[in-house]
Amino acid sequence: MREEQNNKYAVRKIDLEAGKYTVIMHDNDAQALGVREQDRVRVVFGEEYVIAVVETTQSMVKMGEVGLSAELHEVLKDVGEVRIYPTSRPESVEYIRMKMDGKKLTEYQIRKIVEDIVGRNLTDIELSAYVSAVYMRGMDQDETYHLVKAMIETGETIDFGDEIIYDFHSIGGVPGNKVTLIVVPIIASMGLTIPKTCSRAISSACGTADIFEVLAPVSLSAEEIKRIALEVGGTIAWGGAVSIAPADDIIIRAEYPLGIDPPSQLLASIMAKKKGVGANNLLIDIPMGPETKVESIEKARWYARNLIELGEKLDMKVSCAITYGGQPIGRAVGPALEVWEALQMLEGKQVPRSLYSKAIELSSMLLEMGGVLDGKRVAEEAIKSGKALEKLREIVEAQGGSPEFSSESIEFGKYSAEVVAKSDGYVKRIRNRSIIRIAREAGSPYDKKAGVLLAKKEGYRVEKGETLLTIYSSNKTKLENALRVANKISPVSIEGMILEKMPSYREIV
Amino acid sequence: MREEQNNKYAVRKIDLEAGKYTVIMHDNDAQALGVREQDRVRVVFGEEYVIAVVETTQSMVKMGEVGLSAELHEVLKDVGEVRIYPTSRPESVEYIRMKMDGKKLTEYQIRKIVEDIVGRNLTDIELSAYVSAVYMRGMDQDETYHLVKAMIETGETIDFGDEIIYDFHSIGGVPGNKVTLIVVPIIASMGLTIPKTCSRAISSACGTADIFEVLAPVSLSAEEIKRIALEVGGTIAWGGAVSIAPADDIIIRAEYPLGIDPPSQLLASIMAKKKGVGANNLLIDIPMGPETKVESIEKARWYARNLIELGEKLDMKVSCAITYGGQPIGRAVGPALEVWEALQMLEGKQVPRSLYSKAIELSSMLLEMGGVLDGKRVAEEAIKSGKALEKLREIVEAQGGSPEFSSESIEFGKYSAEVVAKSDGYVKRIRNRSIIRIAREAGSPYDKKAGVLLAKKEGYRVEKGETLLTIYSSNKTKLENALRVANKISPVSIEGMILEKMPSYREIV
Repeated sequence: MREEQNNKYAVRKIDLEAGKYTVIMHDNDAQALGVREQDRVRVVFGEEYVIAVVETTQSMVKMGEVGLSAELHEVLKDVGEVRIYPTSRPESVEYIRMKMDGKKLTEYQIRKIVEDIVGRNLTDIELSAYVSAVYMRGMDQDETYHLVKAMIETGETIDFGDEIIYDFHSIGGVPGNKVTLIVVPIIASMGLTIPKTCSRAISSACGTADIFEVLAPVSLSAEEIKRIALEVGGTIAWGGAVSIAPADDIIIRAEYPLGIDPPSQLLASIMAKKKGVGANNLLIDIPMGPETKVESIEKARWYARNLIELGEKLDMKVSCAITYGGQPIGRAVGPALEVWEALQMLEGKQVPRSLYSKAIELSSMLLEMGGVLDGKRVAEEAIKSGKALEKLREIVEAQGGSPEFSSESIEFGKYSAEVVAKSDGYVKRIRNRSIIRIAREAGSPYDKKAGVLLAKKEGYRVEKGETLLTIYSSNKTKLENALRVANKISPVSIEGMILEKMPSYREIV
Repeated sequence: MREEQNNKYAVRKIDLEAGKYTVIMHDNDAQALGVREQDRVRVVFGEEYVIAVVETTQSMVKMGEVGLSAELHEVLKDVGEVRIYPTSRPESVEYIRMKMDGKKLTEYQIRKIVEDIVGRNLTDIELSAYVSAVYMRGMDQDETYHLVKAMIETGETIDFGDEIIYDFHSIGGVPGNKVTLIVVPIIASMGLTIPKTCSRAISSACGTADIFEVLAPVSLSAEEIKRIALEVGGTIAWGGAVSIAPADDIIIRAEYPLGIDPPSQLLASIMAKKKGVGANNLLIDIPMGPETKVESIEKARWYARNLIELGEKLDMKVSCAITYGGQPIGRAVGPALEVWEALQMLEGKQVPRSLYSKAIELSSMLLEMGGVLDGKRVAEEAIKSGKALEKLREIVEAQGGSPEFSSESIEFGKYSAEVVAKSDGYVKRIRNRSIIRIAREAGSPYDKKAGVLLAKKEGYRVEKGETLLTIYSSNKTKLENALRVANKISPVSIEGMILEKMPSYREIV
């Protein structure tokens, strides 16, 4: 009998990246051991052990053998034999269950959940139950604060000592939001320090990390972010490459397929990432409007209030700007296209008011948080003088890119197609989600040269047959797909008359 | 570029049973295709296609190659090359999301969810979100009815034509509940038809399928269940071997690790399994008490009301018995032990009142549903006359077991150990969960001979040093573990005086 052999199994390497510690056992062995799929076991080798999750098989391994996922194999190295014992599920699963029952969690309980998330100790089923519970039950301020702390403390942090560190974050959801490429160099050009990390696209057309990668590598270590921020004043680095608040990426893995973004989790993720990078003066952009993450002014204010309160508890100065996000920012959506439009602005060329105004106003707010008087004038001067562009070149070079670029050197996809107006009228609505979908069909964000260039923004007059937007792609088939989608979903609505009034919150447009 | 190759990939067989259709792609290919882990793709071969979920890897497959899970490989057979296209997530995920938002789902939406569950088209993350949402938001009577219908219609059903078909189900949660082994032969011995299916242990010590397997094979096809039920009057078959309401098993896969059992899902699962087997006269046992699934009389009545109402909609006559489940039924817990105790009763020997009374009362209720007058007397007569035992032999033989058995021929584990009273007093409480845990530690349900035999039930007087329970196991180490656990968790509480009053709902004990 197996049990008489002291629960020993021969190790067989299975070429499987499971994203967690998985032990594959023969059905009969699992039965004899009294464990089922998804149960936890203690895998003992020498004096050490790790906790892993069981998968069962009839054919992948023989009886007396176990397969280990690549992740587990890495820990065990060349161990040829392990002993396996059933063990109970982690206590954090009980706390997830408590949240499902609508209970308030303690600091300790939240900490245990986050530790198990970061330790890859939860299965997909458990992780999904966690995000579902947080989505359906919510978390209060105390819980959210404990969540932030746990997320920070289970990852790397950057310590800038007593330095004043600026940072900027956009809650996202609005396409074409390339303002980071303008705000960061403006702030850094004033001698301030802004170690900005940003994300790749999850469900958007492209994230700032996808965009900036057109100019420079974005995978920096925490050490590099610190060094570059201190040397040239700023970075535009991919947050995913640094292990700051690593729980976030794992949580997103479960949120993304469900299309949910629980507010308290969103608050915690932002604050943990920013506190972890050492920021103490933080400006948060909350785009608001149809088809953004925040669809009402009440919800926007709720976010602002909570972010500011969390900031106080975390010893950070937080300001929020509620901005209009009901249509794309500027005209360009897609990595290279957005770089081109940001460079146009930095080069002093004409860009849409929605982009210019937003970038200047946000920069101004951040500068004023740092005690600069008349931030707007100072920000505009940084553009006019070319100092912001110069600073961007320094940042690009420091991150390992070539500083020889201009808006004219940026290439778009060699295949392009136009979507034209089917009638005369005014552009009543440009749908964010439709623009995102077209850009993605065209290949964005993986095809850097793919995207959408809007010819007309909301409120503009168009004649029948006039171009509404141009789609770019490096790939002909993808372009055709994107064009087919665009013609089907009508991303731009045209009506006989202009919208009578603009919403009152449209201050920063 | 990959796209120019028409999205073609060489197929590599990966020895992975994923429980669903999985395509493993190289990270770079996934990027080029614009898909992430957990995204859906259409896998096209010849004129056909299947929808699969993407996993990404750096090493398991090379660029231009894809690995297919065993399940997917089985569908594709010897196809050497496939084309792969991104596709959107199934619409059912939107409906799960709606339930998360607390919305009521339509018949169509519920049907789509169940179809995707049965089609193994949902990932663990999505499936977990479904059970979490149903747990946290609930379903009303309409939704539950639609869920039952969808669960029936996505599986096999047995059609008995105009026959009157009896059935019995226990909601479970109470250890030692071997009444099915007595109720089914009593009913069948009266010439009634009871094609009983039952389950294996999920979190209990053993399910009825695990128990009956001591006497006969339990994996019957739908055809065999029908034939045997018509020939000898009854079956005791494992529901998991028949594809009746197959959604249930997959849903349990996500509920089990979370330790949840959403009431509306429980209602739907019971009714779907019973309607699917063709039952039209159904008795449901609702064990109630501490550490059962139903801890209060209000909750028990809620279940009873809902089961009866669902029955009406499904054209089934449903009766419910709320029974006391606060301590094990009878004295024996574990497959062979429970068979032994059931046989003792069928042989007319003395068994604990909790078992005798429950089995007789339930049989009586079922008989009276079928128009038998004085069901209790008839049931007792079936025991006394040996007709029920004779019927059990017929059922065992029809299912492929040997009819030569008696309570004396049943063997328990060769290793045993006793837990004794540490003081004089009365048995105040026997904890269901502790008994289950000890039985499982001893090897139940996989070790058929493992389990627990209680010497004293609640209310009994014990002297210090007297045996409270005996643990059996086929394995010495497991026995030692079980004994260690038993001594640690004190499954039996002894106090100075007997509980003053028994709960009023203790009618069928």
